[in-house]
Amino acid sequence: MQEQADKQFKLGVLGGGQLGRMLIQSGINLNLYTKVLDPDPSAPCSNLADEFVVGALTEYKTVMQFGEDVDVLTIEIENVNTEALEELERQGVKVYPQPSLIRMIQDKRTQKQFYRENDIPTSDFFLISDKKELEDFKNFLPAVQKIGKGGYDGRGVLKLKDESDFEEAFDAPSVLEKLVDIEKEISIIIARNKKGETKAFPPVELVYHDANLVDYLLGPAEISEEVAQRAEEIATDLVNKMEFVGLLAVELFVAKDGKVLVNEIAPRTHNSGHQTIEANYTSQFEQHLRAILDMPLGSTKLRTPSAMVNVLGEPGYEGKAVYEGLNEVLAQEGIYVHLYGKLYTKPHRKMGHVTIIDEDKDKLLEKINFVKENLKVITKEIENGND
Amino acid sequence: MQEQADKQFKLGVLGGGQLGRMLIQSGINLNLYTKVLDPDPSAPCSNLADEFVVGALTEYKTVMQFGEDVDVLTIEIENVNTEALEELERQGVKVYPQPSLIRMIQDKRTQKQFYRENDIPTSDFFLISDKKELEDFKNFLPAVQKIGKGGYDGRGVLKLKDESDFEEAFDAPSVLEKLVDIEKEISIIIARNKKGETKAFPPVELVYHDANLVDYLLGPAEISEEVAQRAEEIATDLVNKMEFVGLLAVELFVAKDGKVLVNEIAPRTHNSGHQTIEANYTSQFEQHLRAILDMPLGSTKLRTPSAMVNVLGEPGYEGKAVYEGLNEVLAQEGIYVHLYGKLYTKPHRKMGHVTIIDEDKDKLLEKINFVKENLKVITKEIENGND
Repeated sequence: MQEQADKQFKLGVLGGGQLGRMLIQSGINLNLYTKVLDPDPSAPCSNLADEFVVGALTEYKTVMQFGEDVDVLTIEIENVNTEALEELERQGVKVYPQPSLIRMIQDKRTQKQFYRENDIPTSDFFLISDKKELEDFKNFLPAVQKIGKGGYDGRGVLKLKDESDFEEAFDAPSVLEKLVDIEKEISIIIARNKKGETKAFPPVELVYHDANLVDYLLGPAEISEEVAQRAEEIATDLVNKMEFVGLLAVELFVAKDGKVLVNEIAPRTHNSGHQTIEANYTSQFEQHLRAILDMPLGSTKLRTPSAMVNVLGEPGYEGKAVYEGLNEVLAQEGIYVHLYGKLYTKPHRKMGHVTIIDEDKDKLLEKINFVKENLKVITKEIENGND
Repeated sequence: MQEQADKQFKLGVLGGGQLGRMLIQSGINLNLYTKVLDPDPSAPCSNLADEFVVGALTEYKTVMQFGEDVDVLTIEIENVNTEALEELERQGVKVYPQPSLIRMIQDKRTQKQFYRENDIPTSDFFLISDKKELEDFKNFLPAVQKIGKGGYDGRGVLKLKDESDFEEAFDAPSVLEKLVDIEKEISIIIARNKKGETKAFPPVELVYHDANLVDYLLGPAEISEEVAQRAEEIATDLVNKMEFVGLLAVELFVAKDGKVLVNEIAPRTHNSGHQTIEANYTSQFEQHLRAILDMPLGSTKLRTPSAMVNVLGEPGYEGKAVYEGLNEVLAQEGIYVHLYGKLYTKPHRKMGHVTIIDEDKDKLLEKINFVKENLKVITKEIENGND
C-alpha cells in the first residue's frame, strides 16, 4: 500500500438504492470518493457516485472485480455475494460489516440461532426445512413462519393461527416463531467501530397500518425509561458479541408481558433511522461512515422529537412519477422531504420519505396526517399533464 | 416546450465551487438534475453534478452554449458573463437572479448608486474614476476606497485615513465611502420568489480577526430586537425594490450611532449562511432552490444557536491537503465538518467550514476555540506521511 499513499481513498458500496444515495449525500462533507455497484443503470446512486458500475450484487465474479481497487467495502443491501466479500477480505480489502456477519444475518434461521447461542432475548422458535414439518408443531401455534432467505418488507412472513393456515404456508427452509403478544414494535440503530466503541440512537417506535408496510415512525418511542434502557442493553450486547463493525438496525418487540425481544436485524442503514438526518445530532448515514472508516462515533442524542413517513407509490399509478402536493408539504415548518431519484413509480414503491420535527406531540401528529393526506406519488398521464 | 414535457427538468449553475457543491447536496432531496459550468476540471462540483462542463464563466459563447438546454439557470459566483445571461433570458431561459441585477451588483459603483436612488440606507459616498480624483476628496477622509469590479474576500478594499495613504490607493474606477464607526458587522440572508414572497434568516454576526477574513460567525447576532428588525426591514425593502428572485446576502454595518447601513450585497448563497444547514429549519441552499424554482419559501427560524468557522489552508503549507485534528473535532457533539472536495491546499484557501451548535453560549465559544486550535489543513510532506 506504500506506493498508493497518494491515491485517493475509495469507498466501495454494494447497492445503489436510496440508502446508498443518502450515504453519498452525507459523505460529501468528508470528501468521500465513492464507487457503487448496482444492477440497475438508473439506480438512485447512478449519477451521484464518483464511479458507478452496473452489475449483479449476487455474482461472485462481479463483486470480486468491483472490490479489487477499493480501500473499504460496505453494503447498503444484505442480498450480496458473501463468498466474494470473504475472498476480498482475505486479499486485504477492509469489508464492513464483516462478510461472515452479513452471511449470518442473510438467513433468518442462522440469525435466530445466533440469538439463542448468545443469550440474546428473542421469541421461542423451531427451524423447519419444508412445509410438511409443520405437522410436528401443531402445539406450538399460534406462530409466525418466516422463510430463511429472501424475505423483504413483509414478504416471506406468514401468521399461522391454526392448522387451517398450513395450506398457504411456505414450502421452504424457515423459522417457526412463537407468536409474541406485541405491545409495541421499536427499533434501535446502533454503531460499533473497530476500537469496540458503541453508540445507540434512542429507540424509535414503528406504527403500523393496514399492510405490513411501516405507516410512520415516532422518535423517540413512547416507552418507559426501563424498556428503552433494556433495548439499548440488548442492542449493545448484540454488536459486542458479534464484534460487529458498522451500523446495525435492531428491530425489537416490546411484549405485553414487558419482555423486550429481538425480532430481526439488518447490517446496514435502515428505514427506521432516516429521521436521524434532521432529528439527531448525527445522522445514521454519517454514523455508518464513521464506524467503518475508524472515526470516532458521533453523538446520537435527539435534537427534536420527530416522525418519519415513507413516500410510497400511490396504488393505481404506474409510470413516470409526479409528486402531487409537494409544495403544500414544503410550505410547512419542520417538514423535510427526501426524494430518492426514482424516475418511475408503481404501487407501494418507496419513492422517498418525509421527516417531521416538532417539540409538540399534537402538532407532530397533525403534520403526519397533513403529509399523508397531501403528498401523493402519481403519474402524469392520469393527472392530464397538470403537475 | 410542449414536446419536452417528459424531459427531465434541468437546473444550470454557473460556477462549480463549494457553494454549488452544497446546492447540489441539498438538491438531491428534490431529485434535482444539475448541469454545472466551471473553468476548473477538478472543481468541488465536478464529480457531483449530473453534467459538468469545463469552460470560462466570463466568456459569452461558453455561457450561451452552456445555457441553451437548461430550464432554469442560476449562479454561485457573480463574476459571470451577464450579456450571455441577458440573451438567454430573451430566448426564454429562466435566469435567476435576473441578469440585470447580477450586472448591477457586480460593480460596487452601481450597487451604491442603486442604494442611493432607492432610499436604502448606506454610508455616504462618491464615485471616482481614477486615483488622481482622490485629490478632490481630502475633506471626505477618513474613507474606504473600494474598486468597482473584481474585489473579493477583502481584496480591492483600502482604508484611506489621510492623504498619506493616497499613494497606495487603487488607480481604477471605484467608490469612496465615508468610514463608518462600526459597532458590529452583521449579515442577513433573504430570499424572494417570483410570487413576491420574501423570507429573511435571522441576522448573524461576523466576528473578524487579523486579516480581512471572517474569523467566525455567530447566529443569531447579539443585537437588540430593534436593530434585528431594522436590518430585516432594509433587506426586505431591498429585494422588493430590486424585484429580486433568488437568495440575496446582505452585509450590514451597525454603526456606533445606532444606524443600520447596507455595506454590500451578493446575489447568491453566501459564506455567512452556511450554518443554516444545521442551525435553521431550512438551509440557505434549499431556500435558494425554492426561490428560483417557484416553490414556497421555507421557515428561516433558528433551531439552535450556532457558530460557523471557516476551514482555511494553514499558512506555510501548499500541496495535497491533509486535515489534521479531524477526528478530535468530529468526536465532539454538535460540531459539523463540511469539506469542499478540494485536493490541494494553499495558505488561506477556503477548504471547508465547520458549523457548531449549542444552546449554551459559553460552550459554543469553547467549541469554536477547540475547532480553531485543533483542525488544521496542512500537507502530507511536512507531516512526514503521518495523516
